[in-house]
Amino acid sequence: MIGHGFMGAAHSQGWRVAPRFFELPRPVEMSVVTGRDADKVAACARKWGWDESATDWREVVQRDDIDVVDIVTPGDTHAEIAIAALDAGKHVLCEKPLANTVEEAEAMTAAAERAATRGVRSMVGFTYRRVPATTLARDLIAEGRIGEVRQVRAEYLQDWLMDANAPLTWRMKKEHAGSGALGDIGAHAVDLTEYITGQRVTSVSGIIETIVKERPLLGEGQGLSGTASTERGEVTVDDIALFTGRLTSGALASFEATRFRTGRKNALRIEISGSAGAISFDLERLNELEFYDATLPSTGQGFQRILVTEPDHPYLAPWWPSGHMLGYEHGFSHQVYDFVTAISDGTQPHPSFADGLHVQRVLDAVEKSSEAGSAWTPTGV
Amino acid sequence: MIGHGFMGAAHSQGWRVAPRFFELPRPVEMSVVTGRDADKVAACARKWGWDESATDWREVVQRDDIDVVDIVTPGDTHAEIAIAALDAGKHVLCEKPLANTVEEAEAMTAAAERAATRGVRSMVGFTYRRVPATTLARDLIAEGRIGEVRQVRAEYLQDWLMDANAPLTWRMKKEHAGSGALGDIGAHAVDLTEYITGQRVTSVSGIIETIVKERPLLGEGQGLSGTASTERGEVTVDDIALFTGRLTSGALASFEATRFRTGRKNALRIEISGSAGAISFDLERLNELEFYDATLPSTGQGFQRILVTEPDHPYLAPWWPSGHMLGYEHGFSHQVYDFVTAISDGTQPHPSFADGLHVQRVLDAVEKSSEAGSAWTPTGV
Amino acid sequence: MIGHGFMGAAHSQGWRVAPRFFELPRPVEMSVVTGRDADKVAACARKWGWDESATDWREVVQRDDIDVVDIVTPGDTHAEIAIAALDAGKHVLCEKPLANTVEEAEAMTAAAERAATRGVRSMVGFTYRRVPATTLARDLIAEGRIGEVRQVRAEYLQDWLMDANAPLTWRMKKEHAGSGALGDIGAHAVDLTEYITGQRVTSVSGIIETIVKERPLLGEGQGLSGTASTERGEVTVDDIALFTGRLTSGALASFEATRFRTGRKNALRIEISGSAGAISFDLERLNELEFYDATLPSTGQGFQRILVTEPDHPYLAPWWPSGHMLGYEHGFSHQVYDFVTAISDGTQPHPSFADGLHVQRVLDAVEKSSEAGSAWTPTGV
Amino acid sequence: MIGHGFMGAAHSQGWRVAPRFFELPRPVEMSVVTGRDADKVAACARKWGWDESATDWREVVQRDDIDVVDIVTPGDTHAEIAIAALDAGKHVLCEKPLANTVEEAEAMTAAAERAATRGVRSMVGFTYRRVPATTLARDLIAEGRIGEVRQVRAEYLQDWLMDANAPLTWRMKKEHAGSGALGDIGAHAVDLTEYITGQRVTSVSGIIETIVKERPLLGEGQGLSGTASTERGEVTVDDIALFTGRLTSGALASFEATRFRTGRKNALRIEISGSAGAISFDLERLNELEFYDATLPSTGQGFQRILVTEPDHPYLAPWWPSGHMLGYEHGFSHQVYDFVTAISDGTQPHPSFADGLHVQRVLDAVEKSSEAGSAWTPTGV
Repeated sequence: MIGHGFMGAAHSQGWRVAPRFFELPRPVEMSVVTGRDADKVAACARKWGWDESATDWREVVQRDDIDVVDIVTPGDTHAEIAIAALDAGKHVLCEKPLANTVEEAEAMTAAAERAATRGVRSMVGFTYRRVPATTLARDLIAEGRIGEVRQVRAEYLQDWLMDANAPLTWRMKKEHAGSGALGDIGAHAVDLTEYITGQRVTSVSGIIETIVKERPLLGEGQGLSGTASTERGEVTVDDIALFTGRLTSGALASFEATRFRTGRKNALRIEISGSAGAISFDLERLNELEFYDATLPSTGQGFQRILVTEPDHPYLAPWWPSGHMLGYEHGFSHQVYDFVTAISDGTQPHPSFADGLHVQRVLDAVEKSSEAGSAWTPTGV
Repeated sequence: MIGHGFMGAAHSQGWRVAPRFFELPRPVEMSVVTGRDADKVAACARKWGWDESATDWREVVQRDDIDVVDIVTPGDTHAEIAIAALDAGKHVLCEKPLANTVEEAEAMTAAAERAATRGVRSMVGFTYRRVPATTLARDLIAEGRIGEVRQVRAEYLQDWLMDANAPLTWRMKKEHAGSGALGDIGAHAVDLTEYITGQRVTSVSGIIETIVKERPLLGEGQGLSGTASTERGEVTVDDIALFTGRLTSGALASFEATRFRTGRKNALRIEISGSAGAISFDLERLNELEFYDATLPSTGQGFQRILVTEPDHPYLAPWWPSGHMLGYEHGFSHQVYDFVTAISDGTQPHPSFADGLHVQRVLDAVEKSSEAGSAWTPTGV
Repeated sequence: MIGHGFMGAAHSQGWRVAPRFFELPRPVEMSVVTGRDADKVAACARKWGWDESATDWREVVQRDDIDVVDIVTPGDTHAEIAIAALDAGKHVLCEKPLANTVEEAEAMTAAAERAATRGVRSMVGFTYRRVPATTLARDLIAEGRIGEVRQVRAEYLQDWLMDANAPLTWRMKKEHAGSGALGDIGAHAVDLTEYITGQRVTSVSGIIETIVKERPLLGEGQGLSGTASTERGEVTVDDIALFTGRLTSGALASFEATRFRTGRKNALRIEISGSAGAISFDLERLNELEFYDATLPSTGQGFQRILVTEPDHPYLAPWWPSGHMLGYEHGFSHQVYDFVTAISDGTQPHPSFADGLHVQRVLDAVEKSSEAGSAWTPTGV
Repeated sequence: MIGHGFMGAAHSQGWRVAPRFFELPRPVEMSVVTGRDADKVAACARKWGWDESATDWREVVQRDDIDVVDIVTPGDTHAEIAIAALDAGKHVLCEKPLANTVEEAEAMTAAAERAATRGVRSMVGFTYRRVPATTLARDLIAEGRIGEVRQVRAEYLQDWLMDANAPLTWRMKKEHAGSGALGDIGAHAVDLTEYITGQRVTSVSGIIETIVKERPLLGEGQGLSGTASTERGEVTVDDIALFTGRLTSGALASFEATRFRTGRKNALRIEISGSAGAISFDLERLNELEFYDATLPSTGQGFQRILVTEPDHPYLAPWWPSGHMLGYEHGFSHQVYDFVTAISDGTQPHPSFADGLHVQRVLDAVEKSSEAGSAWTPTGV
């Protein structure tokens, strides 16, 4: 695993837990974790249960005893690491966003496609595809249960920047983070829309904006726990992104990604309205899927709260009995299961780097549209 | 209309509005309202739109130009008025509870049955049967949509006595009010259970209790708006009633009526679990019915929130377009519609006085069971 | 009352019921209802309780015994009637939308302002401002309970056109209806946003679209109950409108009006996120308001479901006891109460014709933006 | 760990994951798992990550290299194992119910108390105390946020026996399972009530009943996956338990445990009404706690949906960022954390064996009350 931190913890938990619950076709060994600071990465290896730690990822990705490289570093380093690993014949799981720029994502996708011809697999870590309820949503739509998709609403609402005096961290500087709410959480809303509908966003019109334009500079410490100084600096990424997209079928989808929806902590929500029904999902109630069947008699129609915790629901069988809830990190086990299975079966896991590249193009088109007064901008599909 | 006050307002609204929306088979005229205080009842007549007011109900129930007598006085006066009116050949709508004692209710039922042989109709005002969602619940069960009834939970939760310093009004004295939460709101829970399931409660075990046993005596003024004095008096009715009943089919039903469920304002709730499904209702969301269909594939089962606002739902057609909400008092229009229709058709409207008497017997059995250490007590069905 | 039909029924109910529950400063008499067809309007007068019917509104608005003119005709006739009535010195309540074009709305507003100098009052019928929960939302924001408004989401979701074979009625032809979802329901979302925030939408970017572009022509009969013929005609109004607006303060608001959100029957929803809290409302649960207080300790924050049915909530005191629900048409009584009170007090009731004109300008700007590739378009504030 | 199966999996997950997220004062090694069948227990050791497997628990509990014994066998074996382990000086974590009879539970409690004098700790596995939301509920009540407890409603609703043709497994035979819904899930409702209120149930009145009295005998296979034969056998445990209890303070609590509430999968719900507020919890939405503050102004009161996923909520800090959900098995990590911490600190962890014994006495009193026609029966507090 290249990198550590919050995502490193989540991925480590996936690697550790998946083999206990799922019948993986191949054994998993948690070999090496890398990081720039030798002490920190050694502590991380101990904490998250990796056999070794290392500081030079370039060396690690060449090691013969390594089969899989899992990349959880910040987005600006993804391209270099992933391409090196793929070229070295390692299967690569790369955390989202695939990259910070379309160009990098294109290079990565090209590398992935070259590698695939040699049986080397790659996958992007949009884990919210692997919440059982979202997978069920996709299945229901694929089976035609809501008919033709007429309209999509997808939003990812948080409020963690609503305090205007929260300090200015690297996440709020464009040079490091690439973008703000758009790339960090809006990317999930776009990917989930494309996954569940089976369609692509072909063009967009939108606006991105920074609500709190200056924040106190960090004093001592770093990250969110750093203390604020009395000086202020400019926030150079967006706090909010509002955009409309057109899907392959011509249907309209409206999107919102924001860190200023007071009281909404992690509300990745999607509602898909079709000619024969609808589905509705909210990550804050991730064990539930709402389904509306418009083919029932009119006196008996209503949104149905399906508790997606039955053994025959997606991914559920190896877990607990009916009615027992899953949490956030279970998706990481599902990801490991699907990735290892695809490697073993020699099939392409989803989402592919090409899928990740496409999401990147949508985000890029939103930024361009915003600069161009919300003009409709193609995503290059 | 005999009596006025809160229920007088609701009934008046029913009489005034029903003819505007429903096609009544006979015209309705709001003739006379009676009360003990001439000035007050005259003011009431003006306010609620009755042609005349009067102080002697005995005279009014004999008048030739009166066809229907609507009784909204306190429970201890129901028997005398209803029997006089029925014997005088007037159709009688009597607000619940039918009476304060089983004996009175028996006499009333006997009078109603005598009157029925002469085509004179009678009905008890359990209006919550006429919320579209509860009627739909009854219809679904009658159609077998939930299979055999396995279990019932019925509760009526309020919190309006939770302030221990609320003054001691007549409603908290047994000699005036008959009983507390049990008779006032528990009666609705029992009636709704019997109506929706189509079964009777045949025996009960339970407890009734007074949580706040002393309250400040009323100083000046009266009713809930009266001011409290510094002296305290004893509360002689129950604040809470918890009981279990057995239905005709043998299934168990559990009941709760309370004025101490903090934060619950008017939560008359019923959930009926069957061998093929379930229904769930809450008066605080009276335009909704939850329905669970256990015959669907296991991955697609879930409580369905049916918005009971479609034109083909019970009582809905004459009201507003799909999706427009009804409120509390609409049930009183439905009651007028059904009562006038039954009179015109010469059929027995429900709930009959016999139905009301049975509810009274259930309440009486609960009180007896409570006195006997929660021993199971038959309701005399 | 000029005009009848669905809105005529709702307004009639308001005029009839308001004086029973509210202390109106002046008595209300329901004098004359007018319509083009003498028989139909006479039937309407009987049904809804008007003293007389008439076919010539021009004559009626001049009558000395008429003080108030209530206009519930289709939008293309509002201007002529309202101006005539105002010029004749009658107080005018005009159903929304104020007019079908900005020009007409301007002329009406000019007439209203002329009339106001003579003490003649005018008001637009955006009744959803008078749902107790929305009024409470406005009050909370005015008191600063959510701090500075950071973001608004307003949507009005219905599904009544989702059947692609529903016949082509006049409501789907631009020449009669002016616009589709945008003007009919989007107007409410805009007005409610402006009312609750106390701000104006100053510019917009958006798209309107027709999802089902052809529908069967009407065969026999008319309106929604007409039968479909085998020929098909073009739908010339929008089914869906998606737009973003900027408020006076600079905050962004996103809007959606659609008749294709499967399973959503009448979901006028608004969520306003502020620096110190948030409010959230859904017309499908109109007796509830959700309020989030971000000034509480972080472990104790959460959306609070306030049942807006307490006597000290807006408009509630004259209705039923705590916890008893109101429905759709209660807003029309509140409207009558406020309008009659303003007439009596000699004050300007809200929303004024100027408010209605502004909403019209926002809708017009949305159409222009849609034609111009979603370019940002000022609303002329 | 003595025993395996569903609970073995959950406990193993707790032991494996807790040290990764929590700072445990002592290292945890997963040494030995025991079971009767050597092959099966060896497979279990591999699957759940135990170093060794063994078939003789008596030998294992004497081993010097074992510090802690975790008992997850069926209830009828708890007493013998726990007492042996405690007497051997091992800290014991025993899955609920503590035992199948009061007598066994008494013997175990005596052993625990003897052991405690030597610094040996014991704890019962009521993990639902360690859902962050239930711990928060307890904290709020302990801080006086709801005032004096007035009333409790606790229910555990499932539907997994609603199919009358589900085969007769050992869980439905009294000789093996001790009791049915009462002991299996009702025990949680009782424990949670006592934990959150800080009070004990002192007497009860109730009824237990078997709804489906005969089921098909198991053909081949075993457990829930066994196939049904054509012969039928008698179900000798309860399907449903309805009871009322009195708490130490005198307040009434009503309980329901059932496997026949169609559509309810795992609804352990508790609502506690107090003189100054209320709390409400549902295990089907385990990341949420509803809190009602009755000290707020009357226009601003409402149940608040607190998402219990903030870093300063109980147990949350080591997990994921704000708004990320936990699932069922996280409670097992919290249990390990608290147990190991208590061992290290030399303090008594809760719930103690005495707490578990008391729950057993309540269940026993419910059975006795049911046999005695629901007579009030003391629990021997």
